[in-house]
Amino acid sequence: MTGTTQDDYTDVYARRVRGMTTSEIRALFAVASRPEVVSLAGGSPYIAALPLDAVGEMLGRLGSDHGTVSLQYGIGQGTVDLRERICEVMALSGIHGASPDDVVVTVGGQQALDLLARLFLDPGDVVLAEGPSYVGALGVFQAAQAQVHHVPMDDEGLIPAALEEAIAAVTRSGRRAKFLYTIPTFQNPAGVTLSEERREQVLDICERAGLLVVEDDPYGMLSFEGDAPLPLRARRREGVFYVSTFSKTFAPGLRVGWILAPHAVREKLVMMSEANVLCPSAFAQAAVTQYLTTMPWREQVKSYREIYRERRDALLTAMRDLMPAGTTWTNPTGGLFVWVTLPEGLDSKAMMPRAIAARVAYVPGTGFYADGTGTGNMRLNFSFSSPERLREGVRRLSGVMEQELAMRAVFGAAAGHPHHRRRGNAAADAPGPDLA
Amino acid sequence: MTGTTQDDYTDVYARRVRGMTTSEIRALFAVASRPEVVSLAGGSPYIAALPLDAVGEMLGRLGSDHGTVSLQYGIGQGTVDLRERICEVMALSGIHGASPDDVVVTVGGQQALDLLARLFLDPGDVVLAEGPSYVGALGVFQAAQAQVHHVPMDDEGLIPAALEEAIAAVTRSGRRAKFLYTIPTFQNPAGVTLSEERREQVLDICERAGLLVVEDDPYGMLSFEGDAPLPLRARRREGVFYVSTFSKTFAPGLRVGWILAPHAVREKLVMMSEANVLCPSAFAQAAVTQYLTTMPWREQVKSYREIYRERRDALLTAMRDLMPAGTTWTNPTGGLFVWVTLPEGLDSKAMMPRAIAARVAYVPGTGFYADGTGTGNMRLNFSFSSPERLREGVRRLSGVMEQELAMRAVFGAAAGHPHHRRRGNAAADAPGPDLA
Repeated sequence: MTGTTQDDYTDVYARRVRGMTTSEIRALFAVASRPEVVSLAGGSPYIAALPLDAVGEMLGRLGSDHGTVSLQYGIGQGTVDLRERICEVMALSGIHGASPDDVVVTVGGQQALDLLARLFLDPGDVVLAEGPSYVGALGVFQAAQAQVHHVPMDDEGLIPAALEEAIAAVTRSGRRAKFLYTIPTFQNPAGVTLSEERREQVLDICERAGLLVVEDDPYGMLSFEGDAPLPLRARRREGVFYVSTFSKTFAPGLRVGWILAPHAVREKLVMMSEANVLCPSAFAQAAVTQYLTTMPWREQVKSYREIYRERRDALLTAMRDLMPAGTTWTNPTGGLFVWVTLPEGLDSKAMMPRAIAARVAYVPGTGFYADGTGTGNMRLNFSFSSPERLREGVRRLSGVMEQELAMRAVFGAAAGHPHHRRRGNAAADAPGPDLA
Repeated sequence: MTGTTQDDYTDVYARRVRGMTTSEIRALFAVASRPEVVSLAGGSPYIAALPLDAVGEMLGRLGSDHGTVSLQYGIGQGTVDLRERICEVMALSGIHGASPDDVVVTVGGQQALDLLARLFLDPGDVVLAEGPSYVGALGVFQAAQAQVHHVPMDDEGLIPAALEEAIAAVTRSGRRAKFLYTIPTFQNPAGVTLSEERREQVLDICERAGLLVVEDDPYGMLSFEGDAPLPLRARRREGVFYVSTFSKTFAPGLRVGWILAPHAVREKLVMMSEANVLCPSAFAQAAVTQYLTTMPWREQVKSYREIYRERRDALLTAMRDLMPAGTTWTNPTGGLFVWVTLPEGLDSKAMMPRAIAARVAYVPGTGFYADGTGTGNMRLNFSFSSPERLREGVRRLSGVMEQELAMRAVFGAAAGHPHHRRRGNAAADAPGPDLA
């Protein structure tokens, strides 16, 4: 503690902190939020579509008329009112008969994942997750000192045979897989959805293996083509922990999510949440409760579906028109993201500085793997920008890719960037939460 | 997972969860929030004293005029605007020259403590803390699987010689003490303040021992008699992590706190916070920023000081008038709490059901120790109830105590409750956050 080194506290940190470093990629993302950059990197909903005057009026009344409750401490589990509304919301998704007593309100879906990790994961435990998977979940598992084993997907989502193989491999290695973390519907970042048939297969496989399932469902309501398949939790009451959030259907700025968990687990989650944040914000909970009770929120979700479908179409059309040959991508039927596979030889991480210079941003695929793969992929978001901006973003991005490919054609593979594997700390390749 | 036992997940939980149980005391606290019960148990500020109409109007404008920012994701560290205001607030407490870049906005002071615990504590590490100490901090250290060693206080706060002894004892035991957790000003629950002279002594001792200091300062602005002594962080820039919150000076329902930490540590805290909650609420941050910028918040703090001083006086007067002989208590010069030592033979935990039956609630002393001591103590709060209610609460409580003492006089010590020591899990004796 004498100020002679850059970090005087290195010998005091806990083991989980070792190797936790920020990366140059994060610095690039700071630039990506400038207005002249078309950002395809974020995961932000299009808040401008909300009836902001009415929302503001509602928020004002929560302070002036109900301030002695909404500005005060609340209970760790969250208010009964909100938990009852949450059960109604889940019923719309096909999860019937859930008890408000089994719901824990959290600080967004992120805290829900963190609480489940703290509840179940000891250092060295294994988590199975889709490859690629949500960068924020990978950060949670890394902080819990757990190992992530990725299970591959195809256009129908997680591949059941690959899941069985992964479970067997973990068992052979003498480690313990505690749960499968999955986003079955409109997956982040892949944009694919687990098919009806596979949902039953995946549940059967996990049940046979004694593997818990953490089902993350932030996007299920944002379907572009009819309703999404029933959540896993709607098919099995036991062994499935359901996580969702109001960040995509109402407002991420309030940070309100939830977990649905069996009673004995729920009690422990509440105690963990109290040790973490004491209680979720009473004001934010009251805001969501009022929004669900007094405002036409189902119509608002429908409106989001339409806006995002139009934007997905604009993005996919622009990609078909402009992307270099050899580029492929998924075809999302809901949610916020498209997953792109680059032509052979291109490296999404190495290309980032040139993309930013060309005023377009994306998230390199490496952020979505715990094992350093993903250099040949990128995630594009279509929820935040207008159709025109999306097309302009694809135009800029395609230009950068064409240039890279031309360099490669002239100078050979040496001009390209080898698909380097890097160990651990995938989160460092990811943007901050304003872009995640 | 067959549903045959009460908790089917016991074999899957992480080690940190073992021994984490809810207690009968928590059930009692649920009753304590009924209106007919005079609760001296909580730690709630008197929100009704805020200008709620003006606050409501401000909150409404944040939604209607700034909703595309305030309802959207933000960055993990918190907004620059709020971090600049926080530096101004700290300057008022005597911490000058802090950089907004070294501030991390958190979900209340609780998340700040949790992030510091995750950053520094491995299982088995030792934390030194005042005895008694804040129940929420004990919960954090327990979740981190750390051992708490309590250091005794007297009317001038932490006893420096006892601190030196505790450090030596930990060293002898072959364990590693990572930091001293301390609330030097208007301590929760003891209500005492570390004297000027001792502040320097404590800092010197920690510096010599290479022990970091986590300074928790939620109450420093709530002084009844002149300004509080300078915070420890105002005396040493290195080795001191300063934590505070807007829960006591504005509104706990927004859940906004912060940590001031050296740059290298700050970077890691931000990554940990992103893995925990992605980002603090943009809306709550905007609300606090607006409150600090556009409303007379310093006058409001003065008004809180006056209200709480009057209530402290009412509580202490009632205690002098009504409490059984042999009862002693601290004399807080600020903050929210009085710490009571019961007459020999009374057990605050065993007495709780009778107190609730007599329509008065408090927190038994055992909640504030990690080692099961504290049965002869209780914490009383004076910030939330009116002077009349406080006196009525003391009247009811004194009645229960007199009755217990009379039973003891007739039937001998056997009628009393032996001062049983209980291992671990002190948090189970504490109320939920609405009362903590």
